[in-house]
Parts: sequence; C-alpha cells; structure tokens
Amino acid sequence: MAPTEVTARILRRLLASGVTSRAERLLARVHPADLGPLFADLTPDEIRRVVDLLFGQHRAANTLRELPPELLPQVFEALSDERLAAVFGRLEIDDMMELADQLDEERHDRILTLLPAHKREELRKHELYPEDSAGRVMTTSFLSVDEKMTAQEAIEHIRAFGEESDAVLYVYVVDGAGRLQGTVPIRRLVAARPDRPCGEFMIREAISARVDADQEEVAQLVARYNLLAIPITDPDDKLLGVITVDDVIEVITEEATEDIYNLAGLSDEDRVFSPAGTSVRKRLPWTILNLGAVFVAASVVGLFEHTLDRIVGLAVFMPVINGMGGNGGVQALTVVTRAMALGEIEFSSGLRAVGKELMVGLAIGLVAGLLAGGVAWLWQGNPWIGVVLAVAMVITMATAGLLGAAVPVVLKALRQDPALGSGVVVVTITDAFGLFCFLGLGTLLLDRLV
Amino acid sequence: MAPTEVTARILRRLLASGVTSRAERLLARVHPADLGPLFADLTPDEIRRVVDLLFGQHRAANTLRELPPELLPQVFEALSDERLAAVFGRLEIDDMMELADQLDEERHDRILTLLPAHKREELRKHELYPEDSAGRVMTTSFLSVDEKMTAQEAIEHIRAFGEESDAVLYVYVVDGAGRLQGTVPIRRLVAARPDRPCGEFMIREAISARVDADQEEVAQLVARYNLLAIPITDPDDKLLGVITVDDVIEVITEEATEDIYNLAGLSDEDRVFSPAGTSVRKRLPWTILNLGAVFVAASVVGLFEHTLDRIVGLAVFMPVINGMGGNGGVQALTVVTRAMALGEIEFSSGLRAVGKELMVGLAIGLVAGLLAGGVAWLWQGNPWIGVVLAVAMVITMATAGLLGAAVPVVLKALRQDPALGSGVVVVTITDAFGLFCFLGLGTLLLDRLV
Repeated sequence: MAPTEVTARILRRLLASGVTSRAERLLARVHPADLGPLFADLTPDEIRRVVDLLFGQHRAANTLRELPPELLPQVFEALSDERLAAVFGRLEIDDMMELADQLDEERHDRILTLLPAHKREELRKHELYPEDSAGRVMTTSFLSVDEKMTAQEAIEHIRAFGEESDAVLYVYVVDGAGRLQGTVPIRRLVAARPDRPCGEFMIREAISARVDADQEEVAQLVARYNLLAIPITDPDDKLLGVITVDDVIEVITEEATEDIYNLAGLSDEDRVFSPAGTSVRKRLPWTILNLGAVFVAASVVGLFEHTLDRIVGLAVFMPVINGMGGNGGVQALTVVTRAMALGEIEFSSGLRAVGKELMVGLAIGLVAGLLAGGVAWLWQGNPWIGVVLAVAMVITMATAGLLGAAVPVVLKALRQDPALGSGVVVVTITDAFGLFCFLGLGTLLLDRLV
Repeated sequence: MAPTEVTARILRRLLASGVTSRAERLLARVHPADLGPLFADLTPDEIRRVVDLLFGQHRAANTLRELPPELLPQVFEALSDERLAAVFGRLEIDDMMELADQLDEERHDRILTLLPAHKREELRKHELYPEDSAGRVMTTSFLSVDEKMTAQEAIEHIRAFGEESDAVLYVYVVDGAGRLQGTVPIRRLVAARPDRPCGEFMIREAISARVDADQEEVAQLVARYNLLAIPITDPDDKLLGVITVDDVIEVITEEATEDIYNLAGLSDEDRVFSPAGTSVRKRLPWTILNLGAVFVAASVVGLFEHTLDRIVGLAVFMPVINGMGGNGGVQALTVVTRAMALGEIEFSSGLRAVGKELMVGLAIGLVAGLLAGGVAWLWQGNPWIGVVLAVAMVITMATAGLLGAAVPVVLKALRQDPALGSGVVVVTITDAFGLFCFLGLGTLLLDRLV
C-alpha cells in the first residue's frame, strides 16, 4: 500500500473518533505537496474538517496551491466565501489566479469583493493577460535593486526582506525608470567586493521574455539556457515579474500531457480521476468526428462491394492494411510533432523531415509488404493476392509516412497547433487511400484472383 | 526564416571565403545552446572548422555539452582523440558521462587512457552506476560545510570557490563523517547572523535521494516539492553529489518523449533527424510485431468468410469497428499511462481507473453505436445491420476502455514499464474481439441480414 493510503486511513480513523489533536499533529507532519493524493481518498465532509484543521495551522493557502485542479471543486464547496477569500489573500498572484480560474463566474465575483482592495486590483489586472501567456504564471514578488546600489547595500536589502523567501535566486538590476538592465545571481552578489556597484558585476545580456509571450516558449527558453528564473518585462523593458523554474517544470509537464493527449484526441481536463460523466462529455465530440472519419473508409469499401462479392478473401486483409497504415502514420506524426514541441525543427527543416519519413515509410512498406504478401500467398494459395497486398502495403506505408510528417508541418505553417487533430486527418486519409489502393488493385487483377 | 538558419548561412559564407576572424566573432556571439541547430545545417567539414574556432575560444566543451545526441557522432568524427580527451577533461562528471555514452567502445577506451588519472578514475567509478540511476546525472561539484561552521565562515568558503559557479543554490551541511545533516539555501545564509553556526539555521528534514534511485523518481521529487537541487547520498547517508533542476528538466523532457514514443511503438533513438536507415532499423521489430498483430485480426475475419460470402455488406463496416475500437483503447491507455508517469495513481486506485474507463467506454459505445447503427440502417436499407453494428460497437468500446486501462495497471503491478508494448496488446485484442463480435453477430442474424 502506498504511504499516502496508510496516512489517509489513519487520518480518517482519527477524524471519526474525534481525536482532533492527534489528527492535527499527523497533518502537521505531511508536506503540502503530499496532501493532494490524501484528499483524493477523503469524503467531502472529511475534506471540510481537514481544511478546518489546516486553517488552524495557517497552512490552507499552501495546501490549496498544491492540490491537483480536479480536486479543487469539492474542496471549494467545503469552504465558505469568507474562508476562501482569506486563503486567496495569502497567496501570490500566480497561485491566486490559478485557483480563481477554477471558480464559476458568480463565486469568482463574490470572492473578489471580499478581497482587500489592492489584492482585488492586482487580480483584475493580471486576469487581463491572455490565457497561456507568461503574465499568467509570473510572480510579482522579486527583488530588484538600482544599478548604482553596492553589493553590500543589495545584501542588506535582501536581509530586510526577512527569511520568508528562500527561493530568491537572482537580484534584478533596474534603471531609474524600472527598465531591466541585468541580473545578479545571489551567489555572485555574495562573492562580490562589498563596495562595488551592482551595475558593474551584473550579467548584462540577461535572457528575458515579454509578458504576452506564450508560456511554452518561455519554458523552452528556461530549459534551453538552463535558467533558474526568467524576468518578464513589458514592451518598454520595464520589469513586471519573474517566472521561476518550478513553474516552468509545471508548464513543461502540462505541455507534455497536452501533446500526448492531443495525439489520442483527448481534452486535457479529461484526467484519470475526473468523474466518468466529464470524461464522456469531453470525448464525445472527438468520438463523433472519428466516427465520421471511419465512415469515409467504410464508404471506400462500399465502392468495391461488387469486387468483394466476387472475391471475399480480399476482405480478410482489410484489417492488415488499416492496422499497418494507421500505425505507420502515427509513428511519423509522433516523431515530427514531438520534435516541434521541443523546438527542434522549423519549416524548412520540416520539409526535410517529410522527405525522410516518406523514405522510411517506403522502406518499411517494402519489408512489411513482402512479408504480408508472402503470408497472404501461402494462406490463400494464390500468388496474385500476395502481389496485391504487397503493392498496396508499400503505397499505404509511404502515404502514412508522408502524411504523418506533412500534416503537422503544414498545420504549423498555418499557425495551427500541429498536435491537435493531426491524428484523425492522417489516419483517415491513410485508411481510406490504403483501402482504395488495395481494393482497386484487387479489382484490376480480379480475373487472376478468382 | 529562423534566426539560426540566417546565422548558418552567414557562417558558411564566412568559412568559404576564409574570413576566419569574422567567423570567430560571429561564433563568439552565439550562446552554446544555440549552436546545436546551427550544427545541424553544416557539413562535416564545416563542423570541423567551427569546432577548431571554438577550441580557440575555449568553448568546445560547453558546446559539445549542449549538442543534441544525434549530432554527436559526426562531431566526434571531426575531432582527433587528443582534442576529444581535452574536451572531456574540462567537463563535469555528468556531462562527461553523457558524451562518453555516445562513443563506441574502442574509442571510449582510447579516450580514457588519454585523460588525467583522477578524471579517468572518476569516470570509471561513475560508469558503474546503473543506467537511468541518479548517480548518472548528479554532479559532484557542490558546496558542503561542517555543521559547526558559522554563517560568516560559510560565506567566505563560497567566496573562495571563485565566481565560476553562479549556479550554487544551496550549501549542504555534513557531519564529521560526511553524512548529510541538512541544507542551507544561499539566500538564508546571506540573511543569517554572521556568527550563527550553520547547523542552527539549516533545513533539517531536507529531501534527498539515493544514488541508485531511478532518475524519473528523483525528477518527480524535485517537481513535487518545488526544489532547485536535490542532494544524492549513498546508503549510509554520505553526500555524494547533487542533481540540479536543469538536469531534472532534461530528465522530465526525455521521459515525456519516451512515454509519447512508447505509445506509438518508437525507440527513443529514432529522432526527427536521425538518418533514415537508423529509423527504419529501429522501427522494423515493432512493425513486424504489429504485422503479426493485424494478422490476428485478419484470421478472425477469415473465420467468417462464409458469412461475408453471403452478405458482403458486412465487410463495409469492418473499418468502422476497427477505427473506433482502436481509438477508444488508445484514449483509455493514454489517460492511465500518463497518470502513472506523473505518479498520480497506485495499484488500488489503478483498479478504480479501470472501472471508470469501462463505464466511459460503455457510455461512448452506446452513443457511437446508436449513431453508427442508424447510418448503417439508412445506408443498407436493413435495420438488422444497424442492430448488429450498434451492439458490436458497444461491446468493442467497452472492451477498449477495459483493456486500455487494465493492461498498463497489470503491467505495472508486474513491475514492467506500463507504456511499453501496451498499445499493441490493447489494439490487437480490441480489433480481433471487436471483429469477432461484429461478424459473429452477423452470422447469428444471417437470415435477417440477407
């Protein structure tokens, strides 16, 4: 049994028997990040009592920040508006926004009116940044110093901030107008001669990002240049906030989930423990789209009913063409979309990738075609059925490779998300065209097949 | 055109015209992390000359460290053993190991003999750690202090390290035997009273990992607890090294690639710009496995040749059953394997996930079955074909959901990688069983269908 399950069991027993003080001590030993899995195992009523205890320990804000989004609705339900507003008031702006996003509009507005005026204004302002933009994940609590401040003065400035912020890694150097001039890693500040001005030993060509930049691109910058935090500026270079590497890890993980999900036609709200109703609702549109797609393949088969009528053995090999073509298409698609997600290819190199996948598809089609054709010949006792299957296989696999690579490259050139919807297009065309070639060849060679 | 393509073009022209000094200045302005895409556009001969120039700037080591693995073979070819050994000598142990992994055995041994003795010993020792273990990615350059050292002494210790290491974030506190006692964020060290011993203000319950722990698990710890670095110890708690967050991001990105690739049956060495021959070689075993799998479905169809002979219209809907079942299976599989990769489910909750996916499959099967059945009725003018298709669809989608969730849960319980190979098992059984139900039902109701 996993440790969280044990803890959940003990916690439940303590709550049931009313030994609040022991439940409290147990909770005090659990890291906020570990409370998520715990909550998943509790009933709404138990959650309410645990949140009560956490309030006593002033840990409710840190806990909510760490909970997986699909658990938030039931936790929110267990909280009064006043308590929720109190939690919001203690959070940094990026965490506050993440939680506020999960509230329905009516409750969102009620909580807003309960917030202190400056928090309310800050939240309103930040909610104007486009979704998935850097502004949505940056924190506004960072340390900035004037370029003329000395190392010693900067260190005293840090001390004045108190011990609360272990996570401060860089001090940002700004000019009189608040424009970003450079960064000083804390480590470098400590090592610097105390009377040197920060402007002298800062890193000048600091990598920064604009507040309206896409989160994924900012995450790629941080990953590529091995940064721990990246300053976020407005178009005039004024420093607005900082995105730290822990948020970057979250963005990278979320984007990876999105890419994997997109390939399977899943919405990223459709998680393993989302209610079954939500999953069904989220999957239905794609299912119906896919249903339309498979009926395209069915109608291609329909064109050849008279052929199948004369030589029913052809029908046996339809799943072979479909299964192999679909797999080949998904492989090419996966390689190319993953490279795009990692920023490894641009349009011109994308065309090179298309050429390569076409060659790979041809080669694999040749091998698979010879094998499948041989088996078909032996099975049906007619070499021509082997020839038809082998030739159709080569064409299908080449088409799969070509489309699997070309569809995302073209979608990206049209500034669409290359992962979204590529799968259904690639598989539909490959299936339909593969069956058309297979049954069409069969029709041409009908006299030799019967 | 992407900026790197412009740079590559200019660089190539400068190299061709022999204006080495200008090429040198251009290179000096390129960040090591940006040289990778640049190298992809150059010929082996041009790469050799660029590496020469980078040697002049003492930047070859940093560059090689940043290059994507698939580019390394041609860069290595362009370098003499002596130069390569010189590069290795300048790298930290984790980077050195990553490069050494890419060498063939013979060259690996030649380079090893050219290294200074202490580097050679270090490399040999680290190569003993299991693949994908924490020991393989940790760096051994970290700052440790004795618990009795004061804040002031610790700061002087940092200063003595020189300016080179901006990335130092924590100081690790050890006892006389080198056992990890706690960590001190540099920020906290700066804020502490100079005469306080580090042992007093360190974080005691520091999260650490064992040197033989799986990299992915260590990465999950760092992500879950929002760490910037994690200390790595031996079984006696002796501090051996540190894994920093930039390596964690690499591990997370690589693991995501592996998960996406596994779902499509791809080897993770099969990258967008791997030579076509490599891709073909890597995909062939899976292709042949998949070919075997689709022939299972084909043989199921073969069982019903007499049915298809009497009512060829059934063959038209085979792609509908295959396409929908395959998609449903991949969706359930994706949701469950992704949750496993993110550490969101254990075995007991895995069983809950199986139950949920079965329900979702049933519900989606009902909707899709009614739609598909209706279309089939209208198309073929016989309500019974609609009934056969609808019932087969419900069974197929329920099977897909059940298998898509259960196969990875069972594989994980058997301590196998849940992502690897699940796809082909799920799709094969779903396809074969779906076609069996569809054609079997058709056979039972044959009299009503003709």
